[in-house]
Amino acid sequence: MDIDARRKADPAHWRLATAIRVLAMDAVEAANSGHPGMPMGMADVATVLFRKHLKFDASAPQWFDRDRFVLSAGHGSMLLYALLHLTGYRQMTMQQIRNFRKLGHITAGHPEYGHVEGVETTTGPLGQGIATAVGMAMAEAAMRAEFGEELCDHRTWVIAGDGCLMEGISQEAIGLAGAQGLGRLIVLWDNNDITIDGRVGLSDRTDQRARFEASGWRVLACDGHDAAQIDRALREASEDDGRPVLIDCKTIIGFGAPTRSDSAKAHGSPLGADEIAGARRAYGWDAPAFEIPEDIAADWRAIGARAAATHKAWQDRVDALATDSGREFARRIANGPNPHLDPAIVALKAQSSEALPKVATRKASETVLEALNPQMPENFGGSADLTGSNNTRTGGMSPFTAANRLGRYVHYGIREHGMAAAMNGIWLHGGFRPYGGTFLTFTDYARGAIRLSALMGLPVVYVMTHDSIGLGEDGPTHQPVEHLAICRATPNLLTLRPCDQVETAEAWQIALSQTDRPAVLALSRQNLPTLRHTHQDENLSARGGYVLREAAGGTPAVVLMATGSEVEIAIAARDVLEAEDIPTRVVSVPSMELFRAQPADWRRQVLAEGSVRIAIEAAVRQPWDWLLLGAGGCEERSAFIGMTGFGASGPAPDLYREFGITAEAVVARAKALL
Amino acid sequence: MDIDARRKADPAHWRLATAIRVLAMDAVEAANSGHPGMPMGMADVATVLFRKHLKFDASAPQWFDRDRFVLSAGHGSMLLYALLHLTGYRQMTMQQIRNFRKLGHITAGHPEYGHVEGVETTTGPLGQGIATAVGMAMAEAAMRAEFGEELCDHRTWVIAGDGCLMEGISQEAIGLAGAQGLGRLIVLWDNNDITIDGRVGLSDRTDQRARFEASGWRVLACDGHDAAQIDRALREASEDDGRPVLIDCKTIIGFGAPTRSDSAKAHGSPLGADEIAGARRAYGWDAPAFEIPEDIAADWRAIGARAAATHKAWQDRVDALATDSGREFARRIANGPNPHLDPAIVALKAQSSEALPKVATRKASETVLEALNPQMPENFGGSADLTGSNNTRTGGMSPFTAANRLGRYVHYGIREHGMAAAMNGIWLHGGFRPYGGTFLTFTDYARGAIRLSALMGLPVVYVMTHDSIGLGEDGPTHQPVEHLAICRATPNLLTLRPCDQVETAEAWQIALSQTDRPAVLALSRQNLPTLRHTHQDENLSARGGYVLREAAGGTPAVVLMATGSEVEIAIAARDVLEAEDIPTRVVSVPSMELFRAQPADWRRQVLAEGSVRIAIEAAVRQPWDWLLLGAGGCEERSAFIGMTGFGASGPAPDLYREFGITAEAVVARAKALL
Repeated sequence: MDIDARRKADPAHWRLATAIRVLAMDAVEAANSGHPGMPMGMADVATVLFRKHLKFDASAPQWFDRDRFVLSAGHGSMLLYALLHLTGYRQMTMQQIRNFRKLGHITAGHPEYGHVEGVETTTGPLGQGIATAVGMAMAEAAMRAEFGEELCDHRTWVIAGDGCLMEGISQEAIGLAGAQGLGRLIVLWDNNDITIDGRVGLSDRTDQRARFEASGWRVLACDGHDAAQIDRALREASEDDGRPVLIDCKTIIGFGAPTRSDSAKAHGSPLGADEIAGARRAYGWDAPAFEIPEDIAADWRAIGARAAATHKAWQDRVDALATDSGREFARRIANGPNPHLDPAIVALKAQSSEALPKVATRKASETVLEALNPQMPENFGGSADLTGSNNTRTGGMSPFTAANRLGRYVHYGIREHGMAAAMNGIWLHGGFRPYGGTFLTFTDYARGAIRLSALMGLPVVYVMTHDSIGLGEDGPTHQPVEHLAICRATPNLLTLRPCDQVETAEAWQIALSQTDRPAVLALSRQNLPTLRHTHQDENLSARGGYVLREAAGGTPAVVLMATGSEVEIAIAARDVLEAEDIPTRVVSVPSMELFRAQPADWRRQVLAEGSVRIAIEAAVRQPWDWLLLGAGGCEERSAFIGMTGFGASGPAPDLYREFGITAEAVVARAKALL
Repeated sequence: MDIDARRKADPAHWRLATAIRVLAMDAVEAANSGHPGMPMGMADVATVLFRKHLKFDASAPQWFDRDRFVLSAGHGSMLLYALLHLTGYRQMTMQQIRNFRKLGHITAGHPEYGHVEGVETTTGPLGQGIATAVGMAMAEAAMRAEFGEELCDHRTWVIAGDGCLMEGISQEAIGLAGAQGLGRLIVLWDNNDITIDGRVGLSDRTDQRARFEASGWRVLACDGHDAAQIDRALREASEDDGRPVLIDCKTIIGFGAPTRSDSAKAHGSPLGADEIAGARRAYGWDAPAFEIPEDIAADWRAIGARAAATHKAWQDRVDALATDSGREFARRIANGPNPHLDPAIVALKAQSSEALPKVATRKASETVLEALNPQMPENFGGSADLTGSNNTRTGGMSPFTAANRLGRYVHYGIREHGMAAAMNGIWLHGGFRPYGGTFLTFTDYARGAIRLSALMGLPVVYVMTHDSIGLGEDGPTHQPVEHLAICRATPNLLTLRPCDQVETAEAWQIALSQTDRPAVLALSRQNLPTLRHTHQDENLSARGGYVLREAAGGTPAVVLMATGSEVEIAIAARDVLEAEDIPTRVVSVPSMELFRAQPADWRRQVLAEGSVRIAIEAAVRQPWDWLLLGAGGCEERSAFIGMTGFGASGPAPDLYREFGITAEAVVARAKALL
């Protein structure tokens, strides 16, 4: 069907969709950068979705029971911004659209969560939108099971492009969603056959429909420029039969652009005045840039208000809840703090004593979770197929599956990246506080989504066990060396490496108290002694670094800084040094970020300016230089005992000796520096 | 068929396979750690493969025309070690097997490339083996096209488990291999239905056969414990019909273990004495641990020598080559240095002058490649679907495709992780020096494979453009901030961030001269002036850091350190400071690793101990502390001008102002510190 016939086939639809297209073209042109082709290609699908299917109330973007809409192909941000503007989201003024991609505006190049209402998650790194949506759909199913359909009853819609589907994370998401039977997850595939380098066939010949079906998805299809076909497909997709749905929307990128449509040239740069003029003619659109004829604007605003009554009815049901239930529901959907957390941690800490057996911090973490999970129904655990190693599943937790939506433990499969993105989605949806485990070295596999946790400021918790060469025989591929540096270099990511049971409890308290940043807990495989015997209610780890063992006399000649499993080594070295009348202080540094946040004076005091300073960590030195050389430190009076390269395969004690991370080495260096 | 019937069905095969199984059980038991279940499950398949199909000569592990065998499920390392031992690889003595997973032995927990002959690539991080094998198969096809089937004619075999197939990278590999039509790539899927957490169905319901078929693979199947069926499947798979092959090998994990077989309990820990004794009885195997009956040992050794004549015939063909061809072939398969590299770079550098227009270093990189590629037939370029942005494809390069095996440019698709792993495979195969491009921020997506490049010491080149907030409008998801820190924290990874055309040429010279470490080139999107006008043959960047502009009088009061696009800012700041009679030196630091490798005295000299020291880089500070605070620096006399958090969406100049990375800010800080 040519464009003219399409225009005439459904004029009401056509005008609505065209409003999106021209806003996208014009905003990209004004910005002199951006991606016009995708919004132009998917405008019809998006129009039908928003007009007839998506449950949303533009006047209440935070309404809990709205459908979630994720633009996985985030470069097509103008599609979303146009929809938000047209349907009447308060913040998305035409002034913002005019200033697309300009600093200080909410219309960033890619949709940024938190910048503007209506952006459900940050997208741009391809494939992550789908994987995040899987988490949202899981959270929806879990909340629905827990609170009933009257309070939670919505779908998750995703627009994804070929780029999303080529990224490996998409397979993790597809596999997880299929196994979970997420029948309310619907992915609209913008099947335009174009990537930046050219036709999709240049690099991929995958039959996407068959691929999704292979993982248990239901597959539908439509001409992505035929409103009636789209509507039919979306209606069919809305019937939950226990399988997630892919809709193959055959589209033309840059639809309507006279010379650039259906080519990579429509993808990622402004079309230019001539092309835009030609497209306007093809669309039959006379209005100047950034002006929407009032009748079309009114129709769009009506779409934005379509679910107002549904929203009100939902609010009435919520208001009718008994006080306690209502309060708890409100707390949960707001991801609010849990009053049981602090007392539970204090009680746990009070049990610690010198007499306790040595225990790995991964095991200590399990003890903490055993205490917390029964009191924190929002805790939503999981592991990327390392449950027994990460110690993430506690006694009362049953697996969250299609057959058991009250389960609170997810077998994510061997899918670190997919797990991390799903955790982001679970938090974003609201109702749950997700934590998930893998080995610290596999933060590599999950990096893309961990970065988005940090960028979005989502307080999910990464339970990263086997956190050093201390894991032993599995060898260098499994031994993190640079990963603490990586986590610490990542803005807004809280890295916690506790040294014993007490610090592990404190680390969990800190992590679960966060409201705007994710935490990585780096936990040992190997057993460690309890080093904090004197009980304090105060969370000392929250200082980031603190004096764990004071030097005799209180004025140290040597300060030993360490984290996690190396604190034990620092203490052993201190014993030797003290026995030789060298006053030695041990500073535990469970979190550099928190230590950095302390007043500089306090940090100088802890580090005892003027003393010899040695840091001990079975990892690379890079993040330690500021503590070794800063705050009155200097090269001649400091040293680092740690890793300078990759690890090796062997029993952990052999490796510590091999790489010179021992109390003897610390003692020798201290003496040499004195 | 029960185990007894299987034993009797093919006794000759049974004894060979059992030798593998008992070695695996016994070695894991002796190590008191490891993974017995997979070798026991795949012993039959591996026996048939090595006995009848794999082209290899155990006496010549480096023979170029051998088939490549990749154990993607690297935790099953004992399978490989047993095979190497039994077939007679010189290094793999029984003493090594006895010391499995012990420090100082070649039998690491996971197969480590370079530790022992016969390990074609390091595996363990799941999925990467398949993706690396895709690169090997591409290189084989390319070498075959270039040098003829007489010199290059082999297959790539992979053993992969469910874990490999769940990891996202497997989809990238499957998609790429399907699109490339790699008919000599054969993946043997250890379909045992078990993951660490339990049955595969806990987390995945994917029909793997359908999934592979969807991406253009041929799918075969066999009972993985039936030698005749396995043989038939492998024979069929060996016929190249232009599609890569998956063989679904139905197996039982821990085959023969009386109580643990077919369960997760057979996966990752020693079986224990009773279980081992029971398995021995089931196998009908009387020999004590680490003893192989001589007749079985002899049969295995004969298998290891099976291709000796084929090898000799190949060597004769190589020896018969004309001198020049022979020399070039030898250079290529040894990944040897190219004599044209250095003169070409020197010639390029000689062209640089102040008069040159401003140019992005990504564009400068293209200019270098335009000069080098025609003279370096081993250069094998590509991009993860950002060809026009990474500037990685030069004029004479045609795409490498199934129809054009002489092409030297790979459209990898939107698959950063798969690309990086394939690059590793291309280098490991021999014959080519791969480079590949994406945005620096997407080192996140490729991290797993970049780490393996570094761990294995493979000098592949990552062309990472759009290396800072300087990319502008695409916003924080696309703006690397912590990625230079990540690269620099990674052992054995060379990070190069050139500031202009001359340094870009030098960076390529350095990267392409490496023999044992990968390089990341961090290149700007935005245009930069040429800052090196005076031609020197010497590669100054190879010093890592050097004086780019001397202070008036030669004794600086201020030293400004910078890399890449921020060197221009340092020079502008110097001009202001010098105009105010403050002697200011600018030090360019294209590579911290190389600077660190210089003698400390030289570094102190460049940094002018005692001066005020300011580092400028549009990234996080973490990697700079050693230069700011070390070598005579101190907190009171140093500063960092860079990023403290994520970027934002806007035009690049606005972002530099917004984040305070300007010459004015540098000048103000310098004066405040003086």
